[in-house]
Amino acid sequence: MDYQRIFAGAIASLKDEARYRVFTELGRHAGAFPKATNFSRTGEPHVTVWCSNDYLGMGQNADVMAAMREAVARYGAGAGGTRNISGNNHPLCRLEAELADLHGKEAGLVFTSGFVSNEAAISTIAQLLPDCLILSDALNHASMIAGIKHSACEKQIFRHNDVDHLRSLLKAQPRERAKLIVFESVYSMDGDIAPIADFCDLADEFGAMTYLDEVHAVGLYGPRGGGIADREGLMDRIDVIEGTLAKAFGIMGGYIAANQDICDAVRSYAPGFIFTTALPPAIAAGALTSVRHLKQSNAERERHQERAATLKRMLADAGLPVMHTPTHIVPVMVGDAALCKQASDMLLDDYRIYIQPINFPTVPRGGERLRITPSPLHSDAMMQHLVASLQEVWGRLGLRAAA
Amino acid sequence: MDYQRIFAGAIASLKDEARYRVFTELGRHAGAFPKATNFSRTGEPHVTVWCSNDYLGMGQNADVMAAMREAVARYGAGAGGTRNISGNNHPLCRLEAELADLHGKEAGLVFTSGFVSNEAAISTIAQLLPDCLILSDALNHASMIAGIKHSACEKQIFRHNDVDHLRSLLKAQPRERAKLIVFESVYSMDGDIAPIADFCDLADEFGAMTYLDEVHAVGLYGPRGGGIADREGLMDRIDVIEGTLAKAFGIMGGYIAANQDICDAVRSYAPGFIFTTALPPAIAAGALTSVRHLKQSNAERERHQERAATLKRMLADAGLPVMHTPTHIVPVMVGDAALCKQASDMLLDDYRIYIQPINFPTVPRGGERLRITPSPLHSDAMMQHLVASLQEVWGRLGLRAAA
Repeated sequence: MDYQRIFAGAIASLKDEARYRVFTELGRHAGAFPKATNFSRTGEPHVTVWCSNDYLGMGQNADVMAAMREAVARYGAGAGGTRNISGNNHPLCRLEAELADLHGKEAGLVFTSGFVSNEAAISTIAQLLPDCLILSDALNHASMIAGIKHSACEKQIFRHNDVDHLRSLLKAQPRERAKLIVFESVYSMDGDIAPIADFCDLADEFGAMTYLDEVHAVGLYGPRGGGIADREGLMDRIDVIEGTLAKAFGIMGGYIAANQDICDAVRSYAPGFIFTTALPPAIAAGALTSVRHLKQSNAERERHQERAATLKRMLADAGLPVMHTPTHIVPVMVGDAALCKQASDMLLDDYRIYIQPINFPTVPRGGERLRITPSPLHSDAMMQHLVASLQEVWGRLGLRAAA
Repeated sequence: MDYQRIFAGAIASLKDEARYRVFTELGRHAGAFPKATNFSRTGEPHVTVWCSNDYLGMGQNADVMAAMREAVARYGAGAGGTRNISGNNHPLCRLEAELADLHGKEAGLVFTSGFVSNEAAISTIAQLLPDCLILSDALNHASMIAGIKHSACEKQIFRHNDVDHLRSLLKAQPRERAKLIVFESVYSMDGDIAPIADFCDLADEFGAMTYLDEVHAVGLYGPRGGGIADREGLMDRIDVIEGTLAKAFGIMGGYIAANQDICDAVRSYAPGFIFTTALPPAIAAGALTSVRHLKQSNAERERHQERAATLKRMLADAGLPVMHTPTHIVPVMVGDAALCKQASDMLLDDYRIYIQPINFPTVPRGGERLRITPSPLHSDAMMQHLVASLQEVWGRLGLRAAA
């Protein structure tokens, strides 16, 4: 068996399809968001980052950074163990209480990442329910798909955000059968929003549980940043709300918020939770500060929405093929993997603009795009430079204009 | 469907078996390791932690803490995205190069945890190899079992550390079939060591790949802290070495070190790597400092071994049922879940000694124990207090003495 040839072949096939990922090595500048040094290029030029999921720039918030530094000084570097074996640190427990409060739930449970929280929570909840049927939106994130797959439960996929299709699937099942409806609020690539209230109505009508991923919404929507369900007054109708500390809150980690027994069951049965080192106190302390700040401050959210709306308008006015979304996500369509990578490289090298190309499997083939995420800290001048640069790149590569 | 009853029932059954986990909420004292505040008890008493996997106290190393604080000040709180989309930060890239060097491999790849590194790397490597057979040690960690399970490949379990059994399984297979031997160097609960050279000989003889988990050995063994394979001069014979940044290195995160194509294939195909936010620059910078320190300093390793040997001798002299291990892990056997929990509670409340009970499923039923992890920073006086306290608790609860 020539193992080496197989791994080399797996890499070569990605290169053939122009979807081999080249990571750009960055050093972000604290205090000068969205500026960064690009260590991948000779001379290490400064660039403007336009594709970060640090949506509000909270990763550079002075209070968050101070909380992290203080926690390192006070508690040390790591947690020192799993949650059960010496790693259950004080800032992490306070963070879980804060997240429970954010979503109006009895309990919160923090994981090392959003991926792990979905994988561990969905698989554990579905496995505990006898003969559970999982009903999953067609565009659910890879981490939710991992959770569904690892549950080994029966699953049915409903068409994206399609209330009628979900209804027809639920209707075909006995009412007494356990059912878990799994979906997202904001879908990260197209920036569209689920019909949460309608899905909750269906859950009530057919006796299903609801599991809502709000990773691209927590901190960003709702009067206290609880997400789309917070904005729409629906948090109490969702059984499990899943979120992240790595996007709007600016750091890392994932979580669920739910009633005490659900959180306790996941805490007690999920291998991906049990057998892993707890988040360091500094990460928890920073996240706690960030969540508390965004509970009380709407300034970042308002400015964020204004920036996204302004940029979408500017792109449309310039004839660029921007997708119209009801959220902060601004996709500009390319539709070809090789061209998408070329456009990204050109922006980086010639215009010092960093936007990673998004290719299959993150989006379907033909849906290749530049996904732009303007933050409250992206200025008018930066936007003008971005739009002008995109126009030039579109011209140089002969890319499709807006339809 | 009464969902609530099911989750409550799942919790109740754990309580019935006395294996419901109660987490102790700690605030470790930087600069005063192994001391911590116990927030779970009234008055928040100070306790001595005896069960941390921060084996060397590197989580409180002044240079590590300084590196983290500086990285927060320079780069901000989080990475801001996945590795591919804006999160590929400079300290993390330097850390991967350092880990490759530590293990004498072409490349390193960092994950958010050791659990994720095993799950993602094993499942991805095995899936890429056509018709791969996984040969797995019977006592492999939950994260390796998750990786094996999620690969959906055929697996065969060989008896723990049993060279003859592994040979007989390999012999029954065609030589040209892809085979992956998956095992650990130091097993964390019994503290025993795998016959790595013998397994490598078998891999050569039968054309298998080797995957070695060194999470309880990196930083602790070998002239540069590369683990047991480093100590025994075997790193070049192992295809994939997996390690953690959360135990001897004192922070969080996991990694693999291997040749360029293997790391690149895992980087490019593993959902648990691709779809997750990168480790924050501060975590990477702290880990980098810790790895570099332990490459050059043997003082911590020597003191660690001396402390473990001294404690084992003191426990044996006191007639306590300590398991004899060739490593730093010091298990004291109880053999009953309820008594193990009682002993732990008594130590915490009456003696200010924190040792979490280890019950099923972390160890087999009947193997319940107090797992003690003396560090270079546990003093003679702390050890005398520990042994005397254990003797009293053993007397009060009528626990079994040494055989």
